[in-house]
Amino acid sequence: MTTYTAPLKDMQFLLHDVLNITQSDTPGYADLDAGFTSAVLEEAAKLAQDVLAPLNAVGDRMGCVLENGVVRTPTGFKAAFDQIREGGWTALDCDPEYGGQGLPYLMNSVVGEIFVSANMAFNMYQGLTHGAYSAIHAHGTAEQKAKYLPKMVTCEWTGTMNLTEPHCGTDLGLMRTKAEPQADGSYLITGQKIFISAGDHDMADNIIHLVLAKAPGGGEGTKGISLFIVPKFLVNDDGTPGARNAVSVGKVEEKMGIHGNATCVLNYDGATGWLLGDLHKGMRAMFTMMNEARLGVGLQGYAVAEAAYQNSLSYAKDRLQGRDVTGAKNPKGPADPLIVHPDIRRNLMDQKSFVEGARALTFWGASLIDAAHHGDAAADGLIGLLTPVIKGFQTDKGFDMAVQAQQIWGGHGYIEEQGMSQFVRDARIAQIYEGANGVQALDLVGRKLAQDGGKHVMAFFELVKAECKAHDGDDRMKPFTDALKAASKQMQAAGMFFMANGMKNPNAALSGSYDFMHLMGHVCLGLMWTRMAKAAYAALDAGGGDTGFLETKVATGRYYMARQLPACAMHLARIESGADPVMALAAEAF
Amino acid sequence: MTTYTAPLKDMQFLLHDVLNITQSDTPGYADLDAGFTSAVLEEAAKLAQDVLAPLNAVGDRMGCVLENGVVRTPTGFKAAFDQIREGGWTALDCDPEYGGQGLPYLMNSVVGEIFVSANMAFNMYQGLTHGAYSAIHAHGTAEQKAKYLPKMVTCEWTGTMNLTEPHCGTDLGLMRTKAEPQADGSYLITGQKIFISAGDHDMADNIIHLVLAKAPGGGEGTKGISLFIVPKFLVNDDGTPGARNAVSVGKVEEKMGIHGNATCVLNYDGATGWLLGDLHKGMRAMFTMMNEARLGVGLQGYAVAEAAYQNSLSYAKDRLQGRDVTGAKNPKGPADPLIVHPDIRRNLMDQKSFVEGARALTFWGASLIDAAHHGDAAADGLIGLLTPVIKGFQTDKGFDMAVQAQQIWGGHGYIEEQGMSQFVRDARIAQIYEGANGVQALDLVGRKLAQDGGKHVMAFFELVKAECKAHDGDDRMKPFTDALKAASKQMQAAGMFFMANGMKNPNAALSGSYDFMHLMGHVCLGLMWTRMAKAAYAALDAGGGDTGFLETKVATGRYYMARQLPACAMHLARIESGADPVMALAAEAF
Repeated sequence: MTTYTAPLKDMQFLLHDVLNITQSDTPGYADLDAGFTSAVLEEAAKLAQDVLAPLNAVGDRMGCVLENGVVRTPTGFKAAFDQIREGGWTALDCDPEYGGQGLPYLMNSVVGEIFVSANMAFNMYQGLTHGAYSAIHAHGTAEQKAKYLPKMVTCEWTGTMNLTEPHCGTDLGLMRTKAEPQADGSYLITGQKIFISAGDHDMADNIIHLVLAKAPGGGEGTKGISLFIVPKFLVNDDGTPGARNAVSVGKVEEKMGIHGNATCVLNYDGATGWLLGDLHKGMRAMFTMMNEARLGVGLQGYAVAEAAYQNSLSYAKDRLQGRDVTGAKNPKGPADPLIVHPDIRRNLMDQKSFVEGARALTFWGASLIDAAHHGDAAADGLIGLLTPVIKGFQTDKGFDMAVQAQQIWGGHGYIEEQGMSQFVRDARIAQIYEGANGVQALDLVGRKLAQDGGKHVMAFFELVKAECKAHDGDDRMKPFTDALKAASKQMQAAGMFFMANGMKNPNAALSGSYDFMHLMGHVCLGLMWTRMAKAAYAALDAGGGDTGFLETKVATGRYYMARQLPACAMHLARIESGADPVMALAAEAF
Repeated sequence: MTTYTAPLKDMQFLLHDVLNITQSDTPGYADLDAGFTSAVLEEAAKLAQDVLAPLNAVGDRMGCVLENGVVRTPTGFKAAFDQIREGGWTALDCDPEYGGQGLPYLMNSVVGEIFVSANMAFNMYQGLTHGAYSAIHAHGTAEQKAKYLPKMVTCEWTGTMNLTEPHCGTDLGLMRTKAEPQADGSYLITGQKIFISAGDHDMADNIIHLVLAKAPGGGEGTKGISLFIVPKFLVNDDGTPGARNAVSVGKVEEKMGIHGNATCVLNYDGATGWLLGDLHKGMRAMFTMMNEARLGVGLQGYAVAEAAYQNSLSYAKDRLQGRDVTGAKNPKGPADPLIVHPDIRRNLMDQKSFVEGARALTFWGASLIDAAHHGDAAADGLIGLLTPVIKGFQTDKGFDMAVQAQQIWGGHGYIEEQGMSQFVRDARIAQIYEGANGVQALDLVGRKLAQDGGKHVMAFFELVKAECKAHDGDDRMKPFTDALKAASKQMQAAGMFFMANGMKNPNAALSGSYDFMHLMGHVCLGLMWTRMAKAAYAALDAGGGDTGFLETKVATGRYYMARQLPACAMHLARIESGADPVMALAAEAF
């Protein structure tokens, strides 16, 4: 059995020592003092530790079952979902006009990490609802908002996002689902959607499906796509759920992981829907939510790794096997704990330094989203650039770290009842959904780098440069700034290579896109560790803080700089080898 | 549904163009002409493709079930096992004195790859038997050999290896299973063994368990351990299975993968056993089989990746999604196949170049085992050095490549019925069993490098040097030899770092052991690709060969050298960062 304890001290350190949120200009941040955030996070931690974490293995084992057309969730999920609702956890950053608490998105992310670490599959019911809420909030009419949002804020009704069809996922231009306009202004939606997370279940009175479909006159490809609101139960004039709409569950998929979440095939057989946002502008409406949704998946990447790490750490401390080569550490026992062995340390430090770095990047990213929501164009550009990195790099590494955590358990890690396998199987999906990581890399190199004349990536480099410059002459910071400078230069060299070669041959850039995403991921985490080290030293200098915690923070950062940033040179070398090795073979030669 | 086709052309190329086996001095190799090996491999391929591969998903879905004390294997396994037996496939390299065919171990490995790719879990029943056969063959008395080997050669009786106990895996000195000597020379074995692959099943008349246990008088730790033969059914004087021995199945584990193989808890309650080999020398007896067993697991690493690769390739060719940025390749279709996209190519080339390189290393390793069996001390030393690399590096990369193969399938790869998830879940165990990969790295850096005064690693470097020198002035070979030389220098620098720092502080070496294993893995595959390129160019120069195949071989090798060998510098940088970053934290600080 695995366990989970929310890393509240690390979270508070990031919010108050690193991001200094109360001093931010972003509206609402000034109110987030340490006492308040601590109170919120402690309550979230209790719920996560006592209710959600124990249900994680239950959800994995029982899965979701389709019975008589209705999906049954694992035992205990409904009661837990009620607790989440009753505690107001679904409403944190929602608009007070519709019953939300109006807190910043950042707070939603911090709490989200805690819930995801405890039970990723469970948290998706709420997560998908939040995505649908945001879409309706951003693009709905006043009437639509009044009709759906109050119920979605409380998760009395949940939401889904319907994009994928059997023959198309990334390439939505191939979509076949049709929307036929009706005389009353509604549309009849017909088609099949697959991989719909939280697509059906028994935990809410209604489910509000947001469905991409092609309405007449929109032309070919993605340009013809519109977004529709298709409730499972049509909503009566008094706001109660009424007649069943013509949408049915074709199947609940058997997946590698996240068994607790119902991934459905949904069949729309002339279901009644209403246009959300502008006709034929459905893709644009989806894209406005993309940064947030992808940041959420990047968060899943490290949040599951955090839970896996905690359980690998406790095993490394408890399991007695072998002796420290430099002298027994547990001489009275039959053997020393695993944690004495350098290779186990390497493994643990890989995990710890990644998770803490990724948490910092994610919180920073969430704060940029808040700033962007309030009209900060620079923040908007920067988070657009960072989003594919947060999603792609963090989910790749998060999966790798879950695998490393499982490895510490040896053969026991391979046995399902121990729970380590679930972390690996659950973490795997985050690399795939919400845009597979290869698509993230394409977005980064093919779009984001050159966006607005390259303004945002230049701003990022300036930020890194300023951070390094700020510590000139501070010897304690040299291991951080030296490594960060070198890595940043390698990232710039990669960008130069793309500029010099990508125009003539786009494949020269795209062959290196995946490596660039990882190179930039390391630079981002290097920047985060530099900031965290600075904050830790400042707190140490000020005195009165938790010295052990702060010194550990610095040592963990030094590990990341020494052991992970050397990957940047490898990625650059691969990028600079260009398209030739990658594209040498004709497709038939494989 | 996944499919599998044995890569016979690649195998024949390695055997006859690269390893030139018929010109080898190793006894038996002269007879392995291309016609003969082709005939054998084609038969193996038929069986694998038609019988074993279709059972792979069946085994995963049904698993093994304990019913009334007996393990039931998945539907179809028994009939398939009969076909394997009847075809003589279990006897390939076994001693003719006991009914074997007396072929070299190399042939067993080549056929083994085909069977493992088709159905890893199924092939383990035979694989474990082969290990037990080898142990009895090497250490048994004439009477023991006569009694057990003929039945094990045919797999009428299968075998198991019993090492692990609930509280000890790597550290066998903690073992508690006891062996009490009886007046008749037998022993009574009492204790619990776990993770026993093929531990029980319904496909053989008897199961011969080889069990490590502590007999009185052996002292503490691993020194007191002896090896025992403990048959499931005691063998009557006429050689037939008789009374049930006091060994029972406590449980069949539910695992992440290899569901088709029964991983058992075996309870020994005063079971009758007979000493195999010398009293208190059980560990030594086990170690004589270690190179072979670990090579077999290293083979699983790339063999599963081969099967995953084939299925990712066919998906990449069939699935239409997006357009080639340099111009449509399927203009009449709704989209281009995935394979046009550079990042999909990168992914496929990673897989292809790894699998083909690992196959070359494994076949070479098997040929060294054959030479060592015939008294070649240099080959014995070299394979001892290579074994942890073949096991650790190949299973790590094999798993990574299975994950990459799954990634090409997007969301469909996460759905169990498609079969890509099984490759990932099956491949995962190879990193864990037969010595977890961290233990392989420890064996490599802590033992093998310095063995016999460092003679074997020096021989390895000489081999690399000679290979590079042989191509001096051949411009076509420069991309290979330049990269190989650089990587080999980095490996030497890492060795120097260990020598300079490891004496004072063993942790300085052990903190870099995992990176060294990977660094050396890349050097080994670089060496293999250099040899394969040389052989391909020689065949191209000679003319009359399959030009397309040979040119593809060279291009695939160039990809490996350009895109994978840059990892060596990263590993060296990590190694040279020493123990400080790794060991900075006290255990309590985590």
